[in-house]
Amino acid sequence: MKNTFGQSVAVTLFGESHGSEVGAVLDGLAPGLLIDEDFIRHQLSLRRPEGKISTARVEADEFRIVSGVFEGRTTGTPLCILIPNTNTRSKDYTKGLPRPGHADYTAECKYHGFQDYRGGGHFSGRITAALVAAGAIAILALRQNGILIGTHISRLASIPDRGFGDYVADIEALGDSRFPVLDTKVESVMKRQIEEAASEGDSVGGVLETAVIGLPSGVGEPWFDTVESVLSHALFSIPGVKGVEFGDGFALSDMRGSKANDGLRMENGKVVTVTNHNGGINGGITNGMPVIFRCAVKPTPSIFIEQESVDLEAKQNATLSLQGRHDPAIVHRARVVVDSVTALVLCDLLALRFGTDFPDA
Amino acid sequence: MKNTFGQSVAVTLFGESHGSEVGAVLDGLAPGLLIDEDFIRHQLSLRRPEGKISTARVEADEFRIVSGVFEGRTTGTPLCILIPNTNTRSKDYTKGLPRPGHADYTAECKYHGFQDYRGGGHFSGRITAALVAAGAIAILALRQNGILIGTHISRLASIPDRGFGDYVADIEALGDSRFPVLDTKVESVMKRQIEEAASEGDSVGGVLETAVIGLPSGVGEPWFDTVESVLSHALFSIPGVKGVEFGDGFALSDMRGSKANDGLRMENGKVVTVTNHNGGINGGITNGMPVIFRCAVKPTPSIFIEQESVDLEAKQNATLSLQGRHDPAIVHRARVVVDSVTALVLCDLLALRFGTDFPDA
Amino acid sequence: MKNTFGQSVAVTLFGESHGSEVGAVLDGLAPGLLIDEDFIRHQLSLRRPEGKISTARVEADEFRIVSGVFEGRTTGTPLCILIPNTNTRSKDYTKGLPRPGHADYTAECKYHGFQDYRGGGHFSGRITAALVAAGAIAILALRQNGILIGTHISRLASIPDRGFGDYVADIEALGDSRFPVLDTKVESVMKRQIEEAASEGDSVGGVLETAVIGLPSGVGEPWFDTVESVLSHALFSIPGVKGVEFGDGFALSDMRGSKANDGLRMENGKVVTVTNHNGGINGGITNGMPVIFRCAVKPTPSIFIEQESVDLEAKQNATLSLQGRHDPAIVHRARVVVDSVTALVLCDLLALRFGTDFPDA
Amino acid sequence: MKNTFGQSVAVTLFGESHGSEVGAVLDGLAPGLLIDEDFIRHQLSLRRPEGKISTARVEADEFRIVSGVFEGRTTGTPLCILIPNTNTRSKDYTKGLPRPGHADYTAECKYHGFQDYRGGGHFSGRITAALVAAGAIAILALRQNGILIGTHISRLASIPDRGFGDYVADIEALGDSRFPVLDTKVESVMKRQIEEAASEGDSVGGVLETAVIGLPSGVGEPWFDTVESVLSHALFSIPGVKGVEFGDGFALSDMRGSKANDGLRMENGKVVTVTNHNGGINGGITNGMPVIFRCAVKPTPSIFIEQESVDLEAKQNATLSLQGRHDPAIVHRARVVVDSVTALVLCDLLALRFGTDFPDA
Repeated sequence: MKNTFGQSVAVTLFGESHGSEVGAVLDGLAPGLLIDEDFIRHQLSLRRPEGKISTARVEADEFRIVSGVFEGRTTGTPLCILIPNTNTRSKDYTKGLPRPGHADYTAECKYHGFQDYRGGGHFSGRITAALVAAGAIAILALRQNGILIGTHISRLASIPDRGFGDYVADIEALGDSRFPVLDTKVESVMKRQIEEAASEGDSVGGVLETAVIGLPSGVGEPWFDTVESVLSHALFSIPGVKGVEFGDGFALSDMRGSKANDGLRMENGKVVTVTNHNGGINGGITNGMPVIFRCAVKPTPSIFIEQESVDLEAKQNATLSLQGRHDPAIVHRARVVVDSVTALVLCDLLALRFGTDFPDA
Repeated sequence: MKNTFGQSVAVTLFGESHGSEVGAVLDGLAPGLLIDEDFIRHQLSLRRPEGKISTARVEADEFRIVSGVFEGRTTGTPLCILIPNTNTRSKDYTKGLPRPGHADYTAECKYHGFQDYRGGGHFSGRITAALVAAGAIAILALRQNGILIGTHISRLASIPDRGFGDYVADIEALGDSRFPVLDTKVESVMKRQIEEAASEGDSVGGVLETAVIGLPSGVGEPWFDTVESVLSHALFSIPGVKGVEFGDGFALSDMRGSKANDGLRMENGKVVTVTNHNGGINGGITNGMPVIFRCAVKPTPSIFIEQESVDLEAKQNATLSLQGRHDPAIVHRARVVVDSVTALVLCDLLALRFGTDFPDA
Repeated sequence: MKNTFGQSVAVTLFGESHGSEVGAVLDGLAPGLLIDEDFIRHQLSLRRPEGKISTARVEADEFRIVSGVFEGRTTGTPLCILIPNTNTRSKDYTKGLPRPGHADYTAECKYHGFQDYRGGGHFSGRITAALVAAGAIAILALRQNGILIGTHISRLASIPDRGFGDYVADIEALGDSRFPVLDTKVESVMKRQIEEAASEGDSVGGVLETAVIGLPSGVGEPWFDTVESVLSHALFSIPGVKGVEFGDGFALSDMRGSKANDGLRMENGKVVTVTNHNGGINGGITNGMPVIFRCAVKPTPSIFIEQESVDLEAKQNATLSLQGRHDPAIVHRARVVVDSVTALVLCDLLALRFGTDFPDA
Repeated sequence: MKNTFGQSVAVTLFGESHGSEVGAVLDGLAPGLLIDEDFIRHQLSLRRPEGKISTARVEADEFRIVSGVFEGRTTGTPLCILIPNTNTRSKDYTKGLPRPGHADYTAECKYHGFQDYRGGGHFSGRITAALVAAGAIAILALRQNGILIGTHISRLASIPDRGFGDYVADIEALGDSRFPVLDTKVESVMKRQIEEAASEGDSVGGVLETAVIGLPSGVGEPWFDTVESVLSHALFSIPGVKGVEFGDGFALSDMRGSKANDGLRMENGKVVTVTNHNGGINGGITNGMPVIFRCAVKPTPSIFIEQESVDLEAKQNATLSLQGRHDPAIVHRARVVVDSVTALVLCDLLALRFGTDFPDA
């Protein structure tokens, strides 16, 4: 199923970077959930470029809900959101020379030249605006049921942030931050790295770390639809994500079992783990501890330094000097996309487990 | 969809560690593919424990094909394979004390105590024997169409192997190796690490690196069913996998775009990339270069060192001293599981793209 | 998967009768297919009410394609179509008294009162406008590949039409007809039945018969995804359809095998059947003969005769005297919905069988 | 998804008529459900041929549960059932001449000659034994939750049975009947029709009518996954089913709305309908009344009268004189298949609606 994801709660994406609108259909969400348009607007603002560290293409993101909401609440039937594209400069794009590291060439292979190549078309990060709008509704629904999601930049251009400490306080603090780090002192250091790269026509990448707290235990499947499987499936479709790890992830592969295993203990009549190296998931199923994962975001491929490319029509080597407006970093903007995707996946897993009236209105 | 994965080519898993058989139903594979039972046997042997670095539970893996094969070839209808469990010692398992790092506790949460707890039940790595048998058929089918898959231990207990060089030669060399490394000198060093851990009742983890060559370009979807998404979905359901990365993966997040981008160039009338930091996938779609990914495998959780656990019935803290037969490392055995899962996913993606007669008999 | 149908080619529906727009996302269609907006307009006109036999609510159906089309052709990425609702009179609807035979009461059960009840909300036949717009693209794509679909009213208020004779000529003739019958003499007789029912505040139903010619043999699956299964799944979601039969359908149950079996014969080097009692499908798979099926459409439930209902709030019996604008018959309008649904399902089955480049641009 | 059906509760079928076993994997059923092997045996016996009205191939149906059951209850993980084929006579089958009305020719088209043609291979009604075994578990699970399913032969060779009266009593009475009719006087009349047809080497068909009582209201989806859609999808994959109708079905198309609409009324504080022409489903969603549907079963295609066929190798006309053991009627045997399929579909719909712990153990 191509541009649709989810089994009980599903999201369908459509739109192109330079089309009239991008949009999403969010289906299967429980009826009666409050729609807080201000919160959707807020979430979209977290995704919006700003300042020297982002593209100069800034969109108003004036979304419009076409269906699925009645008297301010979800109806339970498909909710379609549209977000107009207004600030496009299609002339900046030509079809001939695919950008290295981007989908230009693979789109040509798959769609035989019929794809809308302008601004990356349907592959553009612009489509994530629709994901964020849909995700905002899911995030609120989960929050009302005591499930909180927070993501920070745990590394950018090799600069590390501190890890999660007090989850509730950290997640709260991240909520309004346009440059989400836990240790506020690293913000300026990271931004300087971005500006430096930008000044050289280059770009940087980073790692996003996410924590989910409040999830019930017993969610997920032993095979194929493990929580890791379903989350990674969705996360890997965020443009630029090239790695996903849960708990201590790749670091676990260098540990001994005696270190990696999270001992069990009773706490207030509940089973908890002493440590959380496994990121709240054992055998693909939640254990009630915080779910922790990290996404590796590669540096944005659209850079201004001259690159090797090919002229697809002439079938010969060529050099590409990119024009236009591009982000020197998207890690900070991708944060809210990760939160949104996570919320949508969790709503689906919870509805599959507990029925379509969950999360509760 | 729980224990079934795939859209056009799908595999369904069933069985428990101490049940009569484990098995798989492989559906949607093209008709007419040759079934090489020796190759299935060979692949199963690569998964089988052996020597001091593995569990003492050795299974004969005498598989039986129940359906879907006629006169030595696939019929195109569901192929069911059964593999008997013979060497089980259920008395080694008690239900009361969940093993840290294992699925014992989460199974209890999900199945309310009705799960078969013996030997990990349906969560056991034993189930992967069925995946390997089904995968063997997919691997051969792909090979006949020029698509080769190879996996090596790129790191074990912090000891690194060299990376892929000449893909064809390296993949060939890995085919028969029971301890798959590219630099044969590291084998003994790694094995010593495993034996050392085993002697202390402990276990080690590692990283598996996979290369796929011969894939056509233009396979995968821009959103949700990216090649990374679908592969990671399947890979994360292999027990013990806690991280998946494509191309340079997490290392990409520390690179600049100018380094991470893979320049394009014409070579013998074909578009190729100069480097392959993106692991053969751009925008979720294959570009015709080798697809490269790595899986982080955590140390096996069943260790003999005393651990903190809880007595689920008494609802109080307890210590667990594990008995029974357990692997001090599964990385080398997991290799063929990764190959198998990869082959099954690719057969599905190729059949979706090119129709159900692919791969060609 | 709720409001989404299809595996390789999928359609997602959204919208409510009295919302701003209804719409559809059509995903997975091959790239490069010509978009003929006039044909979409034409198909929508066939669905539009007209004259004394239909509701007085007439919509302009000024559709807008939001995505998935570039330079007049499909891109291969999701195509979203919006159709504004303009002519709504929400005051005609009150929530309290569910209409017998309609979804008012079951929507209340499922959505706990949060559904948009105005005009039937998401259950309204209005949503089929989006299906028709999406289906028009599929119909044209199939036609360019030699696959033709035609539907006529084979019975209305017990008045029969003649059956298909020369398929190509009959399908051509039906194409532009706003009241699709093969025997033109029955049109006025049928219409008189509708007008008579309308004059009494009542409504009539009918049977639609569909023929598909040009389908290749070997499409469909033996179990679960038989051609009958997949078509009926989609057809039964058209509002008002309460029966679906293939070939001679229910009449087959009164035949002997010697009559029901379609003998085989060579014709111009091709295998054909002598008769077609099985409607072109054996064992769930196409045999290359015309695929024939019939849908039973019940009389429209919104009638003006006083009916028994219940006051859901007061929880007591009540009588309902419906106001507003309603169709005394929808059979003739449902025809193009059946054609559209059929085309969408066939595009999916063909893409699954032959790959995502089919139907050919 | 080919031989797998269901979203939360799914069944996968495998096997061929003359293979070693047929089988099913039933996944997603709630944990803790009692497995009553006697009931499974009983249900299989209802499907088994008997006497002059059936084939002489009688199978012992000694099923074996391979997985998913522990200490007599479902574990919640996949339950695989195997049923050996013992009484096969493959020499009765030759590949060359496809049987009219059967899947022989379409299998050739789809599988290019690689299909197992013996006894219809994977298309054989024999596969339904596995469906019946899996369905038995679902039927019991539903029954324990107050949901009862009953099916009778409402017409056979044009002889009608009476309709349902007292649902509970009628369903009880049908439970043990090997020739399920409500009016016991018609049994001998119907059987005489079968024997007469058999004596002429011919076969008969019939109509099966099913009632489901005890279903909660609010189950099903407005579009695509209507209850009618999902049930018909599954029912149309039962071999020989060529028509499905709900409530009054095709007869509705001849009614006026004033007749077809089911008035609403309060009864003991609950909303009920005065009549049930719509078969318990409005807008695709259950309304709490009995769900009623009918399946048209065509006469069995394997008859002994000489028929027109083609020699596929020589590509020329031929006549077919069938040998072997074949049923002159399968309507009475198909009854339990319909019950089983219905139960499996309902378990899925209920688990989707209310979560994976339903039906309650």
